[in-house]
Amino acid sequence: MNNQKDPDIMQKVEVWRKPFIVGVMGGHEASPEILEDARRIGEAIAKRGHVLLTGGGDGVMKAASEGAFKAGGLVLAVLPSDRVRPLAGYPNDFVDIAIQTGMADARNVINAKTPHVMIAINGGWGTMSEIAHALRNDTPVIALKTPSIDLPHKGRLIASTSVEDTLAQLDRLLSKPL
Amino acid sequence: MNNQKDPDIMQKVEVWRKPFIVGVMGGHEASPEILEDARRIGEAIAKRGHVLLTGGGDGVMKAASEGAFKAGGLVLAVLPSDRVRPLAGYPNDFVDIAIQTGMADARNVINAKTPHVMIAINGGWGTMSEIAHALRNDTPVIALKTPSIDLPHKGRLIASTSVEDTLAQLDRLLSKPL
Amino acid sequence: MNNQKDPDIMQKVEVWRKPFIVGVMGGHEASPEILEDARRIGEAIAKRGHVLLTGGGDGVMKAASEGAFKAGGLVLAVLPSDRVRPLAGYPNDFVDIAIQTGMADARNVINAKTPHVMIAINGGWGTMSEIAHALRNDTPVIALKTPSIDLPHKGRLIASTSVEDTLAQLDRLLSKPL
Amino acid sequence: MNNQKDPDIMQKVEVWRKPFIVGVMGGHEASPEILEDARRIGEAIAKRGHVLLTGGGDGVMKAASEGAFKAGGLVLAVLPSDRVRPLAGYPNDFVDIAIQTGMADARNVINAKTPHVMIAINGGWGTMSEIAHALRNDTPVIALKTPSIDLPHKGRLIASTSVEDTLAQLDRLLSKPL
Repeated sequence: MNNQKDPDIMQKVEVWRKPFIVGVMGGHEASPEILEDARRIGEAIAKRGHVLLTGGGDGVMKAASEGAFKAGGLVLAVLPSDRVRPLAGYPNDFVDIAIQTGMADARNVINAKTPHVMIAINGGWGTMSEIAHALRNDTPVIALKTPSIDLPHKGRLIASTSVEDTLAQLDRLLSKPL
Repeated sequence: MNNQKDPDIMQKVEVWRKPFIVGVMGGHEASPEILEDARRIGEAIAKRGHVLLTGGGDGVMKAASEGAFKAGGLVLAVLPSDRVRPLAGYPNDFVDIAIQTGMADARNVINAKTPHVMIAINGGWGTMSEIAHALRNDTPVIALKTPSIDLPHKGRLIASTSVEDTLAQLDRLLSKPL
Repeated sequence: MNNQKDPDIMQKVEVWRKPFIVGVMGGHEASPEILEDARRIGEAIAKRGHVLLTGGGDGVMKAASEGAFKAGGLVLAVLPSDRVRPLAGYPNDFVDIAIQTGMADARNVINAKTPHVMIAINGGWGTMSEIAHALRNDTPVIALKTPSIDLPHKGRLIASTSVEDTLAQLDRLLSKPL
Repeated sequence: MNNQKDPDIMQKVEVWRKPFIVGVMGGHEASPEILEDARRIGEAIAKRGHVLLTGGGDGVMKAASEGAFKAGGLVLAVLPSDRVRPLAGYPNDFVDIAIQTGMADARNVINAKTPHVMIAINGGWGTMSEIAHALRNDTPVIALKTPSIDLPHKGRLIASTSVEDTLAQLDRLLSKPL
């Protein structure tokens, strides 16, 4: 564990009190284009002063975390594992604060309930479960390049096809009372 | 609580040792046709000697449970609620054994992992989360009248359009080593 | 998986509709005396027509399950593991119905909330967590040879020193409205 | 929800990258002396640059959070509730980042696994469950004015009788590799 406060790696981070939490969910594996989308979205979240929440693993989770971390943002992760039963790759190198659940897939529910807005990027069945739990819990979801699902969503499932559109939708959602 | 062993309501149930568990998942609200499908499927599960697992609530969950219960089957339910914080309608009247979780939607994960085969009937985002968790955990899913989802599933997501087809698929899945 | 309905291992079990569920909690490791206590208690639970619930592992859990299983009772287990990420020894050989959670220690909460009465036998910190969760949730606990804890419990934590006393307390608790 | 970034309530907080997380667990109700202990410990955690983690409720949780929040520290809370099913008093007014679980008591497991060191202050069965889960997961526990429990703990359960001693133990634990 490298949690010691080594002056060489200390960096100052400014966070708003009671910030918005924006979740970025997606798969362990993704194409270079998807990973670059995730990195840019993580970076943009940090630059807006929001906290980034991911599942703490590889792929889209890591790319978004790297983008936010390197932009000076605060990066949270809700891990499926815990310290006694670690999983390889959890948390990735760009997580500031890791919530240790040991609950495997049940942590997806927390990922879906905690953010003020969730951005789903591509992804497989794990991401699909997070979209479904979010919509059951009234968390708005911006879905970038995910499969469409034909179920009622009260306007809370917003399909997006680009990073720019995703961020415009995010700003719109956070500009009004949630 | 009516757990007292009142001779008037006592009924003998025969269960196999280490039975197959078949999950039936679906929404709180459903059309009369969907409810009748669920009831018939629950009944057929009981007549095959399998244990029925549902989420313990109303709608599809209750209809399937009623079908199995009245056919003499054993009915399990994994509740989102617990005794200290009960939810109206949980468990429904046709549950033999209620697993009290108090975990709200996180119990969907247990619903998806526990059965040897899961049958999803119609349903909304809750059911969709259970389908997604099942496929993440290699539980085969027979999907009767649910929206289709365009994600890889290694042959484990089987679309069905009738009760008869659903039961034929169930028998096929349980006839070979899981 | 030996879930096939092989006629040679088929056994008929009679269960009451809506039976009482009695939890038996305890450690993975225990002395021969403690294991014999657990086995006798499991057997007595089955003979009374109650369903046994354990955590599904070794030690006290296995001994109680063996006692109940061989006496023809129905044995439930709430596992910390699931099929995709199995844990050695879970479920033990005497479990009829295994609830797959994959939630590690969080399944202790379900163990504590589900039974109508919980019997804790000896045990370590895991068992202690189950006692604590039970008392937070108004599940009465009969504690056989466990460390005492000096906290208010509204009469719900009943110390016991023998199998006979444990069963007498169990019968007393289940004879009145819970 | 007052999550809007109102310039009047904006405060800058400095956090270390990958900070230590210190949990403070305790009951909803406590004497004025216990609450003052909790407030001072929260304040000291913030002044050391650690992140405070609590269960997000009233009593000891709120007092510790107030101490840390007003000292400019980052305050995390793992809530038993979620936005769709809120619980009165959760989160308290001094929480920066709320993890929404909706899992009731099962969130105690996360409270026990996440911090690098857990400080238990007084408390009842909920706190006792968190101590037990922590020791099952090798999280060291400093126990200030809690009941003693006679179980093996490999030196990880450290009884304390004063705020000063608690903080000295905390500094000692965090000064060496965890």
